Amino acid sequence: MIFYGYFRSSAAYRCRIAFNLLGLSPEMRYVHLTKNGGEQRGDAFTQVNPQQLVPALDVDGQILTQSLAIIEYVNEMNGGSLLGDTPMLRAQIRAFAQIIACDIHPLQNLRVLQFISAEYNQTEQAQKDAWCQKWLGDGLAACEVIAQRHQGPFVFGDTPTLADICLVPQMFSAKRFHVDTRDMPRLTAIMDHAHSLPAFAKAAPSQQPDAEV
Amino acid sequence: MIFYGYFRSSAAYRCRIAFNLLGLSPEMRYVHLTKNGGEQRGDAFTQVNPQQLVPALDVDGQILTQSLAIIEYVNEMNGGSLLGDTPMLRAQIRAFAQIIACDIHPLQNLRVLQFISAEYNQTEQAQKDAWCQKWLGDGLAACEVIAQRHQGPFVFGDTPTLADICLVPQMFSAKRFHVDTRDMPRLTAIMDHAHSLPAFAKAAPSQQPDAEV
Repeated sequence: MIFYGYFRSSAAYRCRIAFNLLGLSPEMRYVHLTKNGGEQRGDAFTQVNPQQLVPALDVDGQILTQSLAIIEYVNEMNGGSLLGDTPMLRAQIRAFAQIIACDIHPLQNLRVLQFISAEYNQTEQAQKDAWCQKWLGDGLAACEVIAQRHQGPFVFGDTPTLADICLVPQMFSAKRFHVDTRDMPRLTAIMDHAHSLPAFAKAAPSQQPDAEV
Repeated sequence: MIFYGYFRSSAAYRCRIAFNLLGLSPEMRYVHLTKNGGEQRGDAFTQVNPQQLVPALDVDGQILTQSLAIIEYVNEMNGGSLLGDTPMLRAQIRAFAQIIACDIHPLQNLRVLQFISAEYNQTEQAQKDAWCQKWLGDGLAACEVIAQRHQGPFVFGDTPTLADICLVPQMFSAKRFHVDTRDMPRLTAIMDHAHSLPAFAKAAPSQQPDAEV
């Protein structure tokens, strides 16, 4: 398998955590999202993914995109436990992951920040932070309420699931955009615990070969 | 089961199509997203879904949220065929659905349009349309490229899947926001075919008891 990612992409970060938890080591290729006008918009990568977004996973020439679909695939193919044991638990885990993957992360994505900067004159970092703080703040506050209904070191108990895989990169972004997470003790505890484990720590942006300061 | 929706919500529309395809008839409750400052922000609905978004599905007192998680759950519980037969096909169907559910729809959501209106002075309908046209245009163009790689009356062949369930409401929104879909012949043909079927047609916003002109 060949994985196309970028160190700072939250969606690629999720996939890296899943690969580590499942003991997978795909060949890594790096797509730089800001150099040369964005390598993801070049012809080479557009052939791989017409949506011009990372991540993408090449499985024997078949291209998979979208981080949650990629993670469900590798989990299923490798007998993983990243989804729950029952349909109800799977639905709750997927819903938690989708709050982040649908309703938080796409709004703070690079292409959206570039658009509000160019079109709405939100050029200062503080202005971009304000936009991100709105969507991360609202979304993570809901995640905190849901996570408090469950116990254990991870969102849904004793083992990491797709929920934690999405949460950790999003909490990482929350720090980057100066989101106030002081009212999110459960999410913070889960983040700190997960990040202490090699599968999560080795997936962090700063640990990738393409990382920049 | 009790389903909380709103006639104009794309995410609720997806669930309604899935219920129809699976022959399910949950009790319907209507949450008006613009009256009284938004009923989804009231105490009653916040108890149901702390994220204050429709849809939500009450299954014997357990609340499920997020349309894709809800659809995967009811499909699994009812032996449906809304996902593919193999892990690879399931991944491709989920990825197509997630292009829409993650990278298109959340950006044109009501709460985002309200925010760019209030904060960036995008108060005119033409300005909101321009924002929507950017994200729907880019995302649906990628969907067209992917859909053209497959044949049949639906995105992935002869039977409707989660991909079509997400596509039809998004094409419906494209019309509403005056997105140019003339370069999307395959998506248009799939939309027209699907919308001719009762399961899709009866799920349309205009057919709901809470619909307004």
